[in-house]
Amino acid sequence: MADLELMHALSQPNDTKMVLLVLDGLGGLPMQPGGPTELEAARTPQLDRLAAEGVLGQIIPILRGITPGSGPAHLALFGYDPLVHQAGRGVLEANGVGLLVGAADVAARGNFCTLDATGRVSDRRAGRISSKIAVPLVERLSAVNVPSAEIEIRHVKEYRFAMVMRGAGLHADIADTDPQQTGVPLLAAVAHSDGAQHTAALFNQWIEAARPVLSDQAAANMFTLRGFSSDPQLPSFEQLYSLNAACIATYPMYLGVARLAGMQPLLSGDTPEKQFTTLRAARADYDFVFVHIKSTDSRGEDGDFDGKVAVIEALDRALPQLLECRPDVLVVTGDHSTPARMRAHSWHPVPLLLWAPETVRPDAAAAFGEDTCASGGLGTFAATDLLALMLAHAGRLCKYGP
Amino acid sequence: MADLELMHALSQPNDTKMVLLVLDGLGGLPMQPGGPTELEAARTPQLDRLAAEGVLGQIIPILRGITPGSGPAHLALFGYDPLVHQAGRGVLEANGVGLLVGAADVAARGNFCTLDATGRVSDRRAGRISSKIAVPLVERLSAVNVPSAEIEIRHVKEYRFAMVMRGAGLHADIADTDPQQTGVPLLAAVAHSDGAQHTAALFNQWIEAARPVLSDQAAANMFTLRGFSSDPQLPSFEQLYSLNAACIATYPMYLGVARLAGMQPLLSGDTPEKQFTTLRAARADYDFVFVHIKSTDSRGEDGDFDGKVAVIEALDRALPQLLECRPDVLVVTGDHSTPARMRAHSWHPVPLLLWAPETVRPDAAAAFGEDTCASGGLGTFAATDLLALMLAHAGRLCKYGP
Repeated sequence: MADLELMHALSQPNDTKMVLLVLDGLGGLPMQPGGPTELEAARTPQLDRLAAEGVLGQIIPILRGITPGSGPAHLALFGYDPLVHQAGRGVLEANGVGLLVGAADVAARGNFCTLDATGRVSDRRAGRISSKIAVPLVERLSAVNVPSAEIEIRHVKEYRFAMVMRGAGLHADIADTDPQQTGVPLLAAVAHSDGAQHTAALFNQWIEAARPVLSDQAAANMFTLRGFSSDPQLPSFEQLYSLNAACIATYPMYLGVARLAGMQPLLSGDTPEKQFTTLRAARADYDFVFVHIKSTDSRGEDGDFDGKVAVIEALDRALPQLLECRPDVLVVTGDHSTPARMRAHSWHPVPLLLWAPETVRPDAAAAFGEDTCASGGLGTFAATDLLALMLAHAGRLCKYGP
Repeated sequence: MADLELMHALSQPNDTKMVLLVLDGLGGLPMQPGGPTELEAARTPQLDRLAAEGVLGQIIPILRGITPGSGPAHLALFGYDPLVHQAGRGVLEANGVGLLVGAADVAARGNFCTLDATGRVSDRRAGRISSKIAVPLVERLSAVNVPSAEIEIRHVKEYRFAMVMRGAGLHADIADTDPQQTGVPLLAAVAHSDGAQHTAALFNQWIEAARPVLSDQAAANMFTLRGFSSDPQLPSFEQLYSLNAACIATYPMYLGVARLAGMQPLLSGDTPEKQFTTLRAARADYDFVFVHIKSTDSRGEDGDFDGKVAVIEALDRALPQLLECRPDVLVVTGDHSTPARMRAHSWHPVPLLLWAPETVRPDAAAAFGEDTCASGGLGTFAATDLLALMLAHAGRLCKYGP
């Protein structure tokens, strides 16, 4: 928290506008020796122009060699040390669909699943049932209660839902009920520590009470609970920097992590054009807007190099609409790398572009890619340092010391 | 220890093979303005090919501006913070020749020396007597006892030996008996703290008891003791990462520091070819092998630029034998810089080459040298981060956080 205290102490008001554009899983790898990465293969005249006018660098999401999940990777982009502040999947998902998770509450993420006649898991995602089928099932679960706690539950997407338990003496230190494989029974909610015994018992009680209400279903006849977690109680952008901050994201989890920083979620369609339309409308009301593009990561996880290239090119074509907002500071980066070659998140450094016409010291780079970023003027640095750079270029940090 | 705990928590099994090839004191300086360093002057087609296929960077052994000894520099390469975990010269030397140093024991390094007729030091290394002369003298010292402690002593090389004292209530906080100059008497073993008074007294008692057994010698008629130290009790590579790790080094001290990490010392001849022959034989049994080449540092300390170039070129010629082991991850680096121009260790960043055909993101470099490393794709970073990078490229670290 030491760096946050410093940044808080130095923060000063301004009327500048900042945009943090995160292309999820942006960093890539060549498919064959000597080849380009996804970002290098993409035709990106807009990004290349911004690279020429701005300055490049590389960020390390957590530590060198550590592959981040999206939660800690975004906390780092927002300036919070992800090794100090942990946000579980439950609270991210619950926050993302607008469930209020208080400091004393316990949130979890739920997946509908299929049990066979012997009670063993035959499909961990219930055949990926549609939202249309899942929504009424979530409504049924909403009616299930336990005596000494309040439970709220909300549908997320397809086979996924989020829930929060509110009550006295709750503790989130509980293992997932998902056995992570098929052909075995579900696990009970097991407390990792004595303090969580009571909470685990309440969850198990609720799970057993909920079982009958799904028994008529062929596919979604049960569910798993994962990522039991409480709100990490981060100081917000408002508290730290007096910033009105907003988030434009189409996936609940990213709305969830942005909410942890006190960002206001803004409704938007799910193309870059629609997101940038929302951004333009938000300009007057917000100092800092985090825009999240998911499909770079999705295509990377699919192993679809060309698909990831196409997503980046489509984003590039839409960029003029973002620039119409005339941000004073624009950062384009990723939360981590998701090379199509690896079909997974990776630890590789993430390309970073900082554009701030009034204050940037441009480097020699004239294109946005892994190679140019590796030799960029900002060097290679911890993602947690990025926000201070943005605030500085926005004239929102005053001098330290006499 | 926080980072080690994280790496331990994230470590996962794999059947990948890692090689850490350390050219001691690799980093250099130009002999005249505009000239090449030793590494840049050397003809290294093999290393240059690996540089083209891999990615370069620079590592900072301890902190910028800090010149490391070999002990802390290697601890950093092995992922242990050398400012937290200290390993004295005594325990490194004793470990290196196979003396068991327990947590409660005190080890020291001994140098035979020459006293003149007045009891003043005339040669701090006893004319660099041969091992042939020294071995029987060490045998004589082995027969010298003190009442309440057990002493074990072993010859190291030429005028050097190692010893360990075992007993109750021992403490290593004792100053060297070497006055670091000639023409003055030896120092007594002096405790730096109250807890070490008893141990210092035992060492002084032993020193006085040992004095007569060398009195017939013209050159090695006495000895100094240095580097009093205990085992730092590091968690091993096995404990932290479930790695079978081995060390191929020809100098005891490097075997000693590798043993602190739980690496198995492997017998080998003292040329790169012989070391790589041992490496090939070890492939089946070990996941991680540390190979140490000493003579880059020795030629640097001699001020022998051309000699250091020749050592690097000889290593390069032998490299195909290393590559026959088909490591999944190969790192070539140094523990620190030893520029021939300075005839000493230095604080300069150390060139680093990481080669991992399946997962590396190559940079633009096509040669292995200080200049290409300074602009390499990995950037400049702390040596303690290197091991996590190796583990990541070996698929041995799982994702952090949701």
